[in-house]
Amino acid sequence: MLDCVKKSRDPGAYLFLETAGGIHSPVMSGTSQADFYRSLRLPTVLVGDSNLGGISTTLTSFESLHIRGYDVPSILLFDNMRYKNHDLISTRLNGKNVDITAVPPPPSRNPDPVLDQLAMAKYYEQLDESLVPVMKRLDLKHEERFDRLASMADKARDTHWWPFTQHNLVKEVTVVDSAHGDHFVTYSKTADKKDSNSSAPVDVEGKEMFDSCASWWTQGLGHGNPQLTLAAANAAGRYGHVMFPEGTNEPALALTEKILERDTWASRVFVSDNGSTAMEVALKMAMRTAAKRYGWLENENRPVDILGVDGSYHGDTIGTMDACSPNVYNEQVQWYQPRGHWLQPPSVHISKGKTYVHVPKDVTGKDDNLQVFYDSVSTVYSVDQQGSQRDPGLSDIYKQYIRRELDGLKQQGRQIGALLMEPVVMGAGGMVFVDPLFQRTLVDVVREEGKNLLGYDQSSSSESSSWQGIPVVFDEVFTGWYRLGRPSASDFLGVKPDIVAYAKTLTGGLIPLALTVTKESIFNTFLSDNKPDCLLHGHSYTAHPMGTAVATESIKILDNMATDGTWDVYQQPWKQQDGQNMWSMWNWNTVQQLSHLPNVDSVMTLGYSSAVSASVIQQLRHGDYVNASGTSVNLFARPLGNVIYLMTSQVSTPKDVQECEKILLSCLTNMN
Amino acid sequence: MLDCVKKSRDPGAYLFLETAGGIHSPVMSGTSQADFYRSLRLPTVLVGDSNLGGISTTLTSFESLHIRGYDVPSILLFDNMRYKNHDLISTRLNGKNVDITAVPPPPSRNPDPVLDQLAMAKYYEQLDESLVPVMKRLDLKHEERFDRLASMADKARDTHWWPFTQHNLVKEVTVVDSAHGDHFVTYSKTADKKDSNSSAPVDVEGKEMFDSCASWWTQGLGHGNPQLTLAAANAAGRYGHVMFPEGTNEPALALTEKILERDTWASRVFVSDNGSTAMEVALKMAMRTAAKRYGWLENENRPVDILGVDGSYHGDTIGTMDACSPNVYNEQVQWYQPRGHWLQPPSVHISKGKTYVHVPKDVTGKDDNLQVFYDSVSTVYSVDQQGSQRDPGLSDIYKQYIRRELDGLKQQGRQIGALLMEPVVMGAGGMVFVDPLFQRTLVDVVREEGKNLLGYDQSSSSESSSWQGIPVVFDEVFTGWYRLGRPSASDFLGVKPDIVAYAKTLTGGLIPLALTVTKESIFNTFLSDNKPDCLLHGHSYTAHPMGTAVATESIKILDNMATDGTWDVYQQPWKQQDGQNMWSMWNWNTVQQLSHLPNVDSVMTLGYSSAVSASVIQQLRHGDYVNASGTSVNLFARPLGNVIYLMTSQVSTPKDVQECEKILLSCLTNMN
Repeated sequence: MLDCVKKSRDPGAYLFLETAGGIHSPVMSGTSQADFYRSLRLPTVLVGDSNLGGISTTLTSFESLHIRGYDVPSILLFDNMRYKNHDLISTRLNGKNVDITAVPPPPSRNPDPVLDQLAMAKYYEQLDESLVPVMKRLDLKHEERFDRLASMADKARDTHWWPFTQHNLVKEVTVVDSAHGDHFVTYSKTADKKDSNSSAPVDVEGKEMFDSCASWWTQGLGHGNPQLTLAAANAAGRYGHVMFPEGTNEPALALTEKILERDTWASRVFVSDNGSTAMEVALKMAMRTAAKRYGWLENENRPVDILGVDGSYHGDTIGTMDACSPNVYNEQVQWYQPRGHWLQPPSVHISKGKTYVHVPKDVTGKDDNLQVFYDSVSTVYSVDQQGSQRDPGLSDIYKQYIRRELDGLKQQGRQIGALLMEPVVMGAGGMVFVDPLFQRTLVDVVREEGKNLLGYDQSSSSESSSWQGIPVVFDEVFTGWYRLGRPSASDFLGVKPDIVAYAKTLTGGLIPLALTVTKESIFNTFLSDNKPDCLLHGHSYTAHPMGTAVATESIKILDNMATDGTWDVYQQPWKQQDGQNMWSMWNWNTVQQLSHLPNVDSVMTLGYSSAVSASVIQQLRHGDYVNASGTSVNLFARPLGNVIYLMTSQVSTPKDVQECEKILLSCLTNMN
Repeated sequence: MLDCVKKSRDPGAYLFLETAGGIHSPVMSGTSQADFYRSLRLPTVLVGDSNLGGISTTLTSFESLHIRGYDVPSILLFDNMRYKNHDLISTRLNGKNVDITAVPPPPSRNPDPVLDQLAMAKYYEQLDESLVPVMKRLDLKHEERFDRLASMADKARDTHWWPFTQHNLVKEVTVVDSAHGDHFVTYSKTADKKDSNSSAPVDVEGKEMFDSCASWWTQGLGHGNPQLTLAAANAAGRYGHVMFPEGTNEPALALTEKILERDTWASRVFVSDNGSTAMEVALKMAMRTAAKRYGWLENENRPVDILGVDGSYHGDTIGTMDACSPNVYNEQVQWYQPRGHWLQPPSVHISKGKTYVHVPKDVTGKDDNLQVFYDSVSTVYSVDQQGSQRDPGLSDIYKQYIRRELDGLKQQGRQIGALLMEPVVMGAGGMVFVDPLFQRTLVDVVREEGKNLLGYDQSSSSESSSWQGIPVVFDEVFTGWYRLGRPSASDFLGVKPDIVAYAKTLTGGLIPLALTVTKESIFNTFLSDNKPDCLLHGHSYTAHPMGTAVATESIKILDNMATDGTWDVYQQPWKQQDGQNMWSMWNWNTVQQLSHLPNVDSVMTLGYSSAVSASVIQQLRHGDYVNASGTSVNLFARPLGNVIYLMTSQVSTPKDVQECEKILLSCLTNMN
């Protein structure tokens, strides 16, 4: 179809795709036409209804197209002298950039076929008079559209300040005209207009790209998903935004209930806007609770710190940066100051077909790093059932390391207010798959012995003990909501946190929303009759109905997909080749192949996320993986240093994933 | 109409409001029925179309109702044997909680009127069989709805963790069932069900409340505004979210262009999620730029601080808290540390009918505070035209104070990286209207003499000088977008900042989005060939298309309203009674009256925001202003300590505002 569209790009050529019925009339599969044709997003001429009731039919049809992201440059309808529907439709759509044209109605049927034919011929001639200006306006809008697309990259470069981007290193600006499923529809200017008489499209080339960044790790249910759009729009129409303190509304309460239904260890949900703020809230919750239990409130000279994992990333606000170990990035920020102690993480890799855990020498306490091999990836991820029995020897090494470190903190008199970790994968830190046995052991030691190892007295003996040692915070901003193939990354560790932060995929990839979920005992720390004792955090749009409604809808859809067999096609090969404890969208064979490539250091994958580590990746240019030969897909990717990752949504098709695998294999093979 | 609805609440009673035509057929004014009846938001039975094309008509009508926030518990249509539209409609609306019922079609007309009548009578009997279960299901849904409403307050109390709220002090939970314009539709449980046979509605009472918190200061264009909903849904349908670094899309670029069209002093727009993050970004921009110009990068032992105004509020993240002076709130947060120096602000008040500026003794440098009287509020706000000529004597006092303070900082060897202020009004700090002459003088002194007063050498002489002294940051998160009656609060000061932060009303009150807007010279500070030199901030949903599309739509609508005379009705009385330089939604007479009340300390107002300061306000209970006698409106308000504020949207009607004024007058008078 797209090839057909491309062929029609010659100046003066037109392609009209005529559909039958209303915009929601079903195609063969039962899907609505408006949804079926959406991936093309062709500019749409809506044929309106000039009869009684036609204003409503036309406007509701327009709205259903509009909320699916169609451009409707023109509405055509007959000029019904009695109702003049086109006048009111024009008034209503004022400002929406739609031309409404009323064309004369056909003559009534003449019983004499010859006369009827003559009358119709005359009518069609007349009609041309009405339609020629319509075609001209369509031409003009078409040209305007492509002129705009051709100018957008330069304008963006001149006026945007992109997040986390060194502008000097930006080679090509990606102009995304629309998106659907996993795909961006992008346009690039191929050349400056040589001949000002040429029609605009010649200078701009469209391309579909597979969004393998999953739109910065948020994408769950596909771009332009009509179910999510409708959920968002319904909440917008019903509420707009309603302020949240001391109140509630249906979308906010429904989401809260949905979360607590799953996170049965928790009882309180705090809402904010993004992963950074969810983690700031988590920090405030944890540190106050620990400070109160251990009587640190009076002792302001010694700061409260956190215990973390080296290489973690918890957000971009200054507070969350302070919770991360120093690196070349955060040291650039004037107010950054590391406020914690960070442990060295052992990590999981597949290399030359073998699965192993790399244990840094700090952990072993010896002069060398250690590599421990396992018979499958699934064995590594059996910690939830086996606990330390997965590898009792290694678990002992971890325990000793953790105890040494905690004892060291005690010697320094440090006040540790929280254990923070991204369970299973440290995302922005470079897609590091941390050994789940290490994180499980860390939680166990901190809970069972932390208080004693750190030398804390419990000042108030009446304190409820729903948390032990130090409050444990899981940052599931990236790993939550099936990103790793299980509902939550904590499912791999077989332990629950005291506080968890969610964001990103929480809303299926549509809209910013974040949650910090915790236990009653932590909530109770903030109760008193003194207002300033409350949790001092709140954004104006806290629990905005659009976000909470979309999150609930997304969770419902995902929970259904998790049980209805949708993901079997990905799960089965892993279960057969590797084991029962993990699976990935990436094919097992492809992972094996990649891991054997001479210049690939290692590979790892879980669920919808995978990473290849190879020093050559730093040399990789955009074009290398965009236009790989032998594939029909273009890849939109953004490597993290040495690591290139492929992240899909939860609705990606096997065909698309296979194409992406091919590109990566081809690209990395050719670089050998 | 609502009274009529209330009367129909007896068990077994029904009220049906039958409308004619399609859902977007016009009422007399030309408005669509769906929009016209929206404020009632009655549960809607949609009559579907069983003919050819009827699937589409029915589904598009459902969607247009759905995106306006209607509940559609039931769709009725004839059972057309040929098309069976109801089957496909059922499939499509699966999960939307709609019952689809096909009823038998009427018999074809019998030419014999007696037989026809008999046939119709028989038909209606049959029809009852189809409709009785429909009514039962409607009853059931009605009961479920009110049971749910009755249970929501308790559930919310048990599971929500409200922002900035001391849960122990919450008396009543406001259950917002929907909202429209300025109004919440709320439901309270009036009693526990005494008799389990009684129908649910008896236990729950509905109430309309004027949202005088403007939904935590975000509200611009009214709750449930269909224009904003459509803009949001169109962007959701076209893109979902697309990651922003190194790319662009139409909504993001259009908003950027719109902003720079107005903020002509600026050239770069950075997008984030809320006021806190916009200010964190502003801090990172300003401090790096100052540090680079003055060569502080090498000198890490001395921290970079900010210069601010005492009582300011810049957000809830730890970084923005650090930019505020210590108070009883932020001192509760473990990681809070004040990183700046804060000046004492002179403030504007109206008391006993007189306008004056209160100048604290720190500013005068003498033993006493000073009060300077003016003949009108408008005179105080003439700084944009008159500069220091508004009051040269007072301006000198300000200058001397500022110079003393800067000199003190120099003596301490402080490195000041930014001047931060909320121009004109400090919102969350208690609605303090800062003397615009003071803020203007502060900006002037910092720019003209700051570098010398603080003793900074400009290390690099090639530095572009588009900013002088210290970068000036305006926090317009609350004051921007006409909140104070002018497009920007900086318009009152007659100076532009080097960096400005926008959020809240930016999206008309619908969806979280924030901007940090600045100049090329500040942007250039972050350019290099080294990636980590870039601005280290970015959220996954940066520049999400829904937010940027809604912001552009909102700005367009506001800019139109600013010129089309919509606000004349509020502006004229102020222009006549007070002067040309300010206006308020609050009536001049009311402000006078309030200012004369014996127990009111002072009043102030600008644009859509007003504040009354009175110590009795701390004793004010919710019910005092909710059910004031003699008014038809209930007020939803949330005092800030001693201050009660009234904030409207930009679409509030004079009638509603007058009612709110009455309530406040009555309530404060009665407390005398």
